[in-house]
Amino acid sequence: MLHLQLPTDPRWAALAREDLHTLLVDHAWCEHKAASNAMSLVVRHPGLTDLVEELTRIAAEEISHFGMVVERIRERGWVLGPERKDSYVNELLTFVRKDGSSEERLVDRLLFSAMIEARSCERFKMLSETAADEGLREFYRELMVSEAGHYATFIGLARKHGGRTDVDARWKQFLEFEARVVAGYGKSAEMHG
Amino acid sequence: MLHLQLPTDPRWAALAREDLHTLLVDHAWCEHKAASNAMSLVVRHPGLTDLVEELTRIAAEEISHFGMVVERIRERGWVLGPERKDSYVNELLTFVRKDGSSEERLVDRLLFSAMIEARSCERFKMLSETAADEGLREFYRELMVSEAGHYATFIGLARKHGGRTDVDARWKQFLEFEARVVAGYGKSAEMHG
Repeated sequence: MLHLQLPTDPRWAALAREDLHTLLVDHAWCEHKAASNAMSLVVRHPGLTDLVEELTRIAAEEISHFGMVVERIRERGWVLGPERKDSYVNELLTFVRKDGSSEERLVDRLLFSAMIEARSCERFKMLSETAADEGLREFYRELMVSEAGHYATFIGLARKHGGRTDVDARWKQFLEFEARVVAGYGKSAEMHG
Repeated sequence: MLHLQLPTDPRWAALAREDLHTLLVDHAWCEHKAASNAMSLVVRHPGLTDLVEELTRIAAEEISHFGMVVERIRERGWVLGPERKDSYVNELLTFVRKDGSSEERLVDRLLFSAMIEARSCERFKMLSETAADEGLREFYRELMVSEAGHYATFIGLARKHGGRTDVDARWKQFLEFEARVVAGYGKSAEMHG
């Protein structure tokens, strides 16, 4: 399986470190949205029992992560702010085909999810090396491992339920598209900022 | 705190027992919707940290319950069918005020959630006594305890964040309204059928 084509601008880690409040609040909502995304995929594909079970497990983990981030916000005397839009994710979403066969649409939705996990994983790795305190570095190490597992699950489900779709070829297109998108980011402290 | 004013028609338990497939599939979606409801309340009230933390815990539990029901569907060689509408819940929702102060709207949303937990809890109790096999009876006993806890959490949050709203008086109105609604049910095997 191919990897991210463009690393995050290293200046992003400095921005995130300088504005931890923005990072944490935005990160919390990323976990919330990841849970919602997994649960909505379950609504669309109730007949695929393995997908339902895997995504239910992922949704539970994302909710648990959301709670952990909220705890870290509270510990610092802060409050979770309003939900934020994630323009990086919204740009990625434009690459998901709305037409095509049901297999193609499912593959795209799963690769879109895998893509976000892969990029989040890369950024968690950066945070696990650069965050201001050891507690946060450890936290982001744990999340990095978890998100890597989610990425593998989404890719595995795409291969399994992709029918005649060439999942590797489509993933390569996703990686190329994502590289063009992410080139415009790295300029603010949000998780996908 | 006042209790349900009208017990479920005892014939409902027989219907649920006779059509376990319908019960379980519908029950799974009830858990899914309960998780979504808790998560959407978090989106609306990110500034209330205790509410965010309590509802995140509830959402995680509901997702876990969803997974447990899906497992019981799979064990029987069945597949989770498409999401079903819950007309009982939709009728209850009409009692939630769309106008009024933000506290009144929050109280209504919390009491609406508490109401569903209370009725579900009563039905889980019935299932824990009447389901066809001991595994299911035990399962529904566990869920009954869990939902009773959720009910208490929702009521507690309503009291805490209700401002000048008379939560007891409003709960009494909810109970009266719910009794009129539920009088029309008990005729099919769905969880709130």
